[in-house]
Amino acid sequence: MTAPKLTALADSLPSTVPFVGPETQERARGRPFVARVGANESVFGPSPKALAAMAAAGADAWMYGDPENHDLRTALAEAHGVGPENIVVGEGIDGLLGYLVRLFICEGDAVVTSDGAYPTFNYHVAGFGGVLHKVPYVDDHEDPATLFAKAAEVGAKLVYLANPDNPMGTWHKGTDIAAALDALPDGCLVALDEAYVELAPEGTAAPIDINDPRVIRFRTFSKAYGMAGLRVGYGMGAEPLITAFNKIRNHFGVGRVAQAGALAALRDDVYLTETIARVADARARLAQIARDNGLTPLPSAAIFVTIDCGSDGDFARAVLKELIARDIFVRMPFARPGDRCIRISTGTPEDLEAVAAALPHALAAARAT
Amino acid sequence: MTAPKLTALADSLPSTVPFVGPETQERARGRPFVARVGANESVFGPSPKALAAMAAAGADAWMYGDPENHDLRTALAEAHGVGPENIVVGEGIDGLLGYLVRLFICEGDAVVTSDGAYPTFNYHVAGFGGVLHKVPYVDDHEDPATLFAKAAEVGAKLVYLANPDNPMGTWHKGTDIAAALDALPDGCLVALDEAYVELAPEGTAAPIDINDPRVIRFRTFSKAYGMAGLRVGYGMGAEPLITAFNKIRNHFGVGRVAQAGALAALRDDVYLTETIARVADARARLAQIARDNGLTPLPSAAIFVTIDCGSDGDFARAVLKELIARDIFVRMPFARPGDRCIRISTGTPEDLEAVAAALPHALAAARAT
Repeated sequence: MTAPKLTALADSLPSTVPFVGPETQERARGRPFVARVGANESVFGPSPKALAAMAAAGADAWMYGDPENHDLRTALAEAHGVGPENIVVGEGIDGLLGYLVRLFICEGDAVVTSDGAYPTFNYHVAGFGGVLHKVPYVDDHEDPATLFAKAAEVGAKLVYLANPDNPMGTWHKGTDIAAALDALPDGCLVALDEAYVELAPEGTAAPIDINDPRVIRFRTFSKAYGMAGLRVGYGMGAEPLITAFNKIRNHFGVGRVAQAGALAALRDDVYLTETIARVADARARLAQIARDNGLTPLPSAAIFVTIDCGSDGDFARAVLKELIARDIFVRMPFARPGDRCIRISTGTPEDLEAVAAALPHALAAARAT
Repeated sequence: MTAPKLTALADSLPSTVPFVGPETQERARGRPFVARVGANESVFGPSPKALAAMAAAGADAWMYGDPENHDLRTALAEAHGVGPENIVVGEGIDGLLGYLVRLFICEGDAVVTSDGAYPTFNYHVAGFGGVLHKVPYVDDHEDPATLFAKAAEVGAKLVYLANPDNPMGTWHKGTDIAAALDALPDGCLVALDEAYVELAPEGTAAPIDINDPRVIRFRTFSKAYGMAGLRVGYGMGAEPLITAFNKIRNHFGVGRVAQAGALAALRDDVYLTETIARVADARARLAQIARDNGLTPLPSAAIFVTIDCGSDGDFARAVLKELIARDIFVRMPFARPGDRCIRISTGTPEDLEAVAAALPHALAAARAT
């Protein structure tokens, strides 16, 4: 008997993982990390009200979640001053990006992103056979003008832009993003990933009309809301685009416990404000640790600080390796010239003291190799 | 400016929902159901140990779940006497069926299922442009011989078969399924949906070698384990097939809380045994209620009892409508001849007494229309 054949496209894909989990590394090392500050998570965790809501929902976990995510979408719509028909809830931004690519990209279609930007978007584009065109960062920023010019040049159907950016932490004023859209070619859609925007300065969220068909923006409960382990993200945009997700999404994909947790988190503004302050404090401390070691912290509007190690990618990779050897879980940008940096998530004061203690030794060891 | 264009395939799809949630009906009705016995959920809920594990994991919800689902896959592998490389964990069987179709079906490829079988599988096939061929049930059973003969006739790449079946509740002996595979055409893959198999008589799970490339079987924590609201399912099969899911799956799609809950549930054999007994008692009670009303319960190995209302689809739809009007949430098979039946999930004794009280009035009202 012959094994069934994958599609030619599926057969051509690697069995890849966009990110190796820290658990995988811990299993390989045989010991846990002391500070888990590599995955852009919020160690400050969910709101106590969200924890209580999830615990209460546990007993209801025998029921499928509402496939329309009605209560959560209604609350999100109210919070953003849009209609529920402008909101799609899904299995994290990762899941929603997959749906988005599936809706728009046939094999051979052009897509534009920045070289070094979010790998999971690239994974989805490859997964549906899209052809990815990459433009360079400009001064460690994703650059809307360069991105949109490339989109015009290659006839792209989709452009990915994160604001604030991951992995560099840099950002643009929202009004600049909105103004740059004038150069977007007709019929091209911008996937504007605002995963970190709650943590950014006022005015970072772009003032774009919800009915503007050129943009879909993505938000998440994984970052400022501290619930990466729940898997709840959402997209916002014009109704025809949002409705199209209903053609293909896993309708029951966001479970009852996750919906309950996200709804309670959304309603706890006080806790969100506290988290934003804690993240800002931790960013400042991380920047100070970098400077104390003669390194250059990049300004950050995200949940991490990207630190220029002052040399090339090989050196930064050596620093990363030495930090990991000292039980500090961190990651770094994958592409040049960003790979001269390492990226450290905002941790607890204890996490950051562990970083402060380990970094001088890691740097010395990296310099000695 | 022009709105970006969906792919031709996406554009051709309806914005459908395979199942309307009971919450949607409750919002439309303006009042809750008294008995939620329509969605094939387990009202007996998760194991208390799973509830405790989920509550404990809540505080860890700030961390992404392990993208390899290592601990859960290892435990599942041990439970089934296979390797972790034979197990893929995903966002419910629904999510995994979507990935499976994506891996194997190009536009125009033939797929075979039974007329009236699981609509969400059909949704995924349509979503990837597959051409669905339907064969009839035989004596209210999905029929492997008919399915595999049709697969040979149309050159199908995939065949869907549920054992036990939903929506009829009927089942085949596992040895009969295994023997029927001899007639499967070369290069065709069987998606064997065993969502209810823990609740079925001993010997219902087909004795198929894990390395047999012709079959992938699906299991879930949504039914016997009582955690539909968590969204954890898994597939089991030959390593090359299982590994292929890594090409396209949402690696972080199963969250930390969900993994922890599923793992604890899997380890609580005592609770599973208790649930199986409760489901069996409830099936017997539902069968008695049907007979008390002059209706014919079908034998069931699932979490529901399908009841032949003794007339045609119009009559069964009228009975369904009258039950819903009396605050009993139930569903029914969509296709003839199964649509002469209604389908009632096993509920608490109180749920079933509400059914017993409402059914005579619903039948009388249906007969009067």
